[in-house]
Amino acid sequence: MKDKNIKEIFKKVNQFQIKNDTDIVNLIEDLKGTGFSAKRLALACEIYKEMIEDKDCVKFFGLAGAMVPVGMQQIIHDFIEEEYIDILVTTGANLTHDIAETLGYHHLQGEVHIESLDDANLYEQEMNRIYDVFLPNKVYEGIEDFVSKLKIPDNNMSVSAFLKFLGERVPDNPKSILRICADKNIPIFCPAFTDSGLALQLGFHHQQLNLNHFKDMLEMVNLAWDAKKAGICIIGGGVPKNFIFQSMQFCPNSADYAIQITMDRPEPGGLSGATLNEAMSWGKINKNAKHSTVISDATIALPIIFWYLKKSGEGR
Amino acid sequence: MKDKNIKEIFKKVNQFQIKNDTDIVNLIEDLKGTGFSAKRLALACEIYKEMIEDKDCVKFFGLAGAMVPVGMQQIIHDFIEEEYIDILVTTGANLTHDIAETLGYHHLQGEVHIESLDDANLYEQEMNRIYDVFLPNKVYEGIEDFVSKLKIPDNNMSVSAFLKFLGERVPDNPKSILRICADKNIPIFCPAFTDSGLALQLGFHHQQLNLNHFKDMLEMVNLAWDAKKAGICIIGGGVPKNFIFQSMQFCPNSADYAIQITMDRPEPGGLSGATLNEAMSWGKINKNAKHSTVISDATIALPIIFWYLKKSGEGR
Amino acid sequence: MKDKNIKEIFKKVNQFQIKNDTDIVNLIEDLKGTGFSAKRLALACEIYKEMIEDKDCVKFFGLAGAMVPVGMQQIIHDFIEEEYIDILVTTGANLTHDIAETLGYHHLQGEVHIESLDDANLYEQEMNRIYDVFLPNKVYEGIEDFVSKLKIPDNNMSVSAFLKFLGERVPDNPKSILRICADKNIPIFCPAFTDSGLALQLGFHHQQLNLNHFKDMLEMVNLAWDAKKAGICIIGGGVPKNFIFQSMQFCPNSADYAIQITMDRPEPGGLSGATLNEAMSWGKINKNAKHSTVISDATIALPIIFWYLKKSGEGR
Amino acid sequence: MKDKNIKEIFKKVNQFQIKNDTDIVNLIEDLKGTGFSAKRLALACEIYKEMIEDKDCVKFFGLAGAMVPVGMQQIIHDFIEEEYIDILVTTGANLTHDIAETLGYHHLQGEVHIESLDDANLYEQEMNRIYDVFLPNKVYEGIEDFVSKLKIPDNNMSVSAFLKFLGERVPDNPKSILRICADKNIPIFCPAFTDSGLALQLGFHHQQLNLNHFKDMLEMVNLAWDAKKAGICIIGGGVPKNFIFQSMQFCPNSADYAIQITMDRPEPGGLSGATLNEAMSWGKINKNAKHSTVISDATIALPIIFWYLKKSGEGR
Repeated sequence: MKDKNIKEIFKKVNQFQIKNDTDIVNLIEDLKGTGFSAKRLALACEIYKEMIEDKDCVKFFGLAGAMVPVGMQQIIHDFIEEEYIDILVTTGANLTHDIAETLGYHHLQGEVHIESLDDANLYEQEMNRIYDVFLPNKVYEGIEDFVSKLKIPDNNMSVSAFLKFLGERVPDNPKSILRICADKNIPIFCPAFTDSGLALQLGFHHQQLNLNHFKDMLEMVNLAWDAKKAGICIIGGGVPKNFIFQSMQFCPNSADYAIQITMDRPEPGGLSGATLNEAMSWGKINKNAKHSTVISDATIALPIIFWYLKKSGEGR
Repeated sequence: MKDKNIKEIFKKVNQFQIKNDTDIVNLIEDLKGTGFSAKRLALACEIYKEMIEDKDCVKFFGLAGAMVPVGMQQIIHDFIEEEYIDILVTTGANLTHDIAETLGYHHLQGEVHIESLDDANLYEQEMNRIYDVFLPNKVYEGIEDFVSKLKIPDNNMSVSAFLKFLGERVPDNPKSILRICADKNIPIFCPAFTDSGLALQLGFHHQQLNLNHFKDMLEMVNLAWDAKKAGICIIGGGVPKNFIFQSMQFCPNSADYAIQITMDRPEPGGLSGATLNEAMSWGKINKNAKHSTVISDATIALPIIFWYLKKSGEGR
Repeated sequence: MKDKNIKEIFKKVNQFQIKNDTDIVNLIEDLKGTGFSAKRLALACEIYKEMIEDKDCVKFFGLAGAMVPVGMQQIIHDFIEEEYIDILVTTGANLTHDIAETLGYHHLQGEVHIESLDDANLYEQEMNRIYDVFLPNKVYEGIEDFVSKLKIPDNNMSVSAFLKFLGERVPDNPKSILRICADKNIPIFCPAFTDSGLALQLGFHHQQLNLNHFKDMLEMVNLAWDAKKAGICIIGGGVPKNFIFQSMQFCPNSADYAIQITMDRPEPGGLSGATLNEAMSWGKINKNAKHSTVISDATIALPIIFWYLKKSGEGR
Repeated sequence: MKDKNIKEIFKKVNQFQIKNDTDIVNLIEDLKGTGFSAKRLALACEIYKEMIEDKDCVKFFGLAGAMVPVGMQQIIHDFIEEEYIDILVTTGANLTHDIAETLGYHHLQGEVHIESLDDANLYEQEMNRIYDVFLPNKVYEGIEDFVSKLKIPDNNMSVSAFLKFLGERVPDNPKSILRICADKNIPIFCPAFTDSGLALQLGFHHQQLNLNHFKDMLEMVNLAWDAKKAGICIIGGGVPKNFIFQSMQFCPNSADYAIQITMDRPEPGGLSGATLNEAMSWGKINKNAKHSTVISDATIALPIIFWYLKKSGEGR
């Protein structure tokens, strides 16, 4: 390899400075000149911005993890309101917690280990723990109350059709993910819907209910198939990641843009931690795709990405 | 606190020795006297053994991760054959790969980075990568061929009923998880079944198919409810973990034994990495439950646990 | 526990919004109302701010990891210039790379896996890799040239005295950590100094050199002993973390403030991933200390913390 | 790429079975046919065996982490007794804890969170915590007593010479690492020696002591230089890893064999988690080196490796 080529491959690391006029846009631009996770976060911001600006790009968003309980509900809502998401794939848990907040209940913050209030005591206090976030058990009663009164017209809808139906019936809460998706006609897919408290309460109160999961699966392949270009943002991995990627795998298309924010790693071989390069071998993303994996807690990375997208898009 | 109490709480760490007569049973006993993950693995072995010996205990086994591709299919099969598992909850991916091996196809081992065969090249070679394991794409054609010929009598079965039906029809391969479960009448639950290549091919060839996921969900709660005592083994987290735990949460029961083998950690707040103590706050496991979380790649821990169980149970 | 008490322990999670007037200060305030790593990062910002505002607080800063190569040299420099650090403890590697940049050389950014330029090829190109950052081997020749010309007056200085001597002799580069520490009389401790390329080249060219590591060790205990109050910021763990903490352990003092930014976790039992609670049992931090551990890549967290400190401190 | 070549690159994954006659040797052979960490552990066993059988190979062993406290002292001792280690590089902490056990004190095992005995209470009980292992503070008094009585003949020894001196003076405890190294003339390098409780107590009682760290550094380079072939085993990373690797970097040699057992990962860019491929770019290991990184808690992997080496070497 000639020196000339070497020079094209490598660029100087940017020993950047935080200045008085640093804002989120130039901070991200500065971080792009560094390495490790900082650079990858900057690339993720830039790629997401391109996905938004590329009018041919259908933006798939996979959301796992306890993002609603921890306080990221409004951010997710605003991703949808700003039209940064075209298709949302998420877990039943996020929907359960979204309904809880939408109905006016709240998650609580505390410490992981509370003196004289260990997990056995928390159970007696009917206080469920999610790391350092808490949910009083009685919130489930409120969800149950809401769910039990639903008049479900068709017991054989797809899950996404049911979630639309649900989104139209929840209170018009300005943070609600279900509501904004229904309002803006953004489909929500939830392949493991029965793996949630929401589905359990539906099942207890609507014994005939049988949502057609296969309709969702095939519809999702069609959406992937029909996309002129596809862009993917994965938060946390899990079923949402695989569901988006399998749709790309089983259609002639493959993603042109892909970012993922996760704390999972490739070595244990699970799909959640798999690299985006690996996804190329399956035809899930194409070989020229712009992509970036950021090893970061999503609670730190997601607000930064949203902030960057919002600020860098101002005045468009 | 008195010195007397301190002495009851703490025991000497065992600076153990590997001797000529070390076998898996006394190695595990020795590791129990240490700390960190070694002790936790030893506790997991011991707790699983108690679950087996406790005739009242119903053993729930949650299996995520790419355990079949990596070479753990026979181990899982043998867990079932040895009756160490009463109820299996797993991912569509594990079932897809189980069918592949059961039909006579093979996963391949290689390197993560193969010189002059990067992921884009692998795609051209129709070779799908799972970290350092590979699956030729044509295997999906073999699965498709098998799936397309199925005569499905009832388009509204539960997923577990369908998986029983499937297990009765796959070849009688001595490694097959689907087959041994059908033979031994061990139910397989797969809440995110449509999140798999197997389900996609079923959907493509059986357009009327609509497995009733809600039946599974309610049946699983009933199984948890009816268990005199419940023991849980979680490999890798994901939907299988949550599905087992939500069934415990939504019934008066809670688990008396619980072990989990995972590389996920609690700090990002996801359910996969959540501690078993946290599960107590939800009433998923009870406050006196024996439990152990082992932070380890399951490909190392699972063979050790099985080996220990088999050897320590000899002559019962 | 009474409802009243429960209410004092738990607060509502803040489903915060990124608004047009969001700046780094109110973003951090918003994140403080959430959970998981976002809350912990916010707490770390707040605690560091208190450390700065508390005039009795001596601020110990432990810096491991490849922070200079990746582009964080200027940020570290500015921490010192802004007087956010009173005592720096770091690795020989960070000092080696600091000298490289200070002498006018540059680290380079690239990809982890470069097509047709694998690690064996990089070796032939004399290009050393640090994840996705690169250092041409010839930079070591430049360092060697600088080092060989040093006239070292005393072969029995402490390491910190030698680093002061060195900082006075490096070029007056506005990013240089060694230089700003010398200028501002901030001591640099480097307990594993001989574990570095810089020390190797010193040793090759100054065969009589024998820096007195025991002087540093005792001086560090004296600094901890004399501090009215102690605040600790740990980036990445390693020897710098232990060196600061052992000084607290072996003096009557203990830290009143402590934050750590790391990707290491407690389960493997190493000191790098140990919790700050654990440090209490040793008397390294006191039981009422304000503390926060952030599981995050420091390349993301450190610029945010610095940005927050600078902005929130404006106009003081 | 032709089918023929593909076949040479990939081999069938081994869906192995635990049988009645499974022993550690054939288990490892079976795991070699799998993937993920199981295969890597098997490769590590095999490579270490080759290092032992290759009479030209000098075996460097880097030991970080709290391996003595957790109960791995005897295993390390036996690695040395069996002559599996030629040069040991370790942390001051491991030596401090080795002396504690060698003097007859014990580490204790317990729970991470002990009811009504949190870390603040542990401090009052003078009980230091290392994850789930504990060390009564009074043990330091015992070490102090031993250290204070030492007659150190030369205040300018290298650290390794001092550790030899020390090993000759500790009680003849059959688990002692210091003692067996002295007896078998295995040098111990400890580049960050002053970062330890042992060094602090030496410093307090022997104010003139000034171990010559530069002598160690240069001697280590000479050992690397003189090795016909070099084999490296890294447990946990840290300074021991870098110290071994820098000696390879700064001599014409490079390692022919390398294994590392760690929970650290490459993404944060630190040396502890760096891949062995990365080490090739620096000339630390050569491009044809046999190498394997195992992402595993060393408390699980190390006993397995030792057991395999001992059993597979029987009858040699």
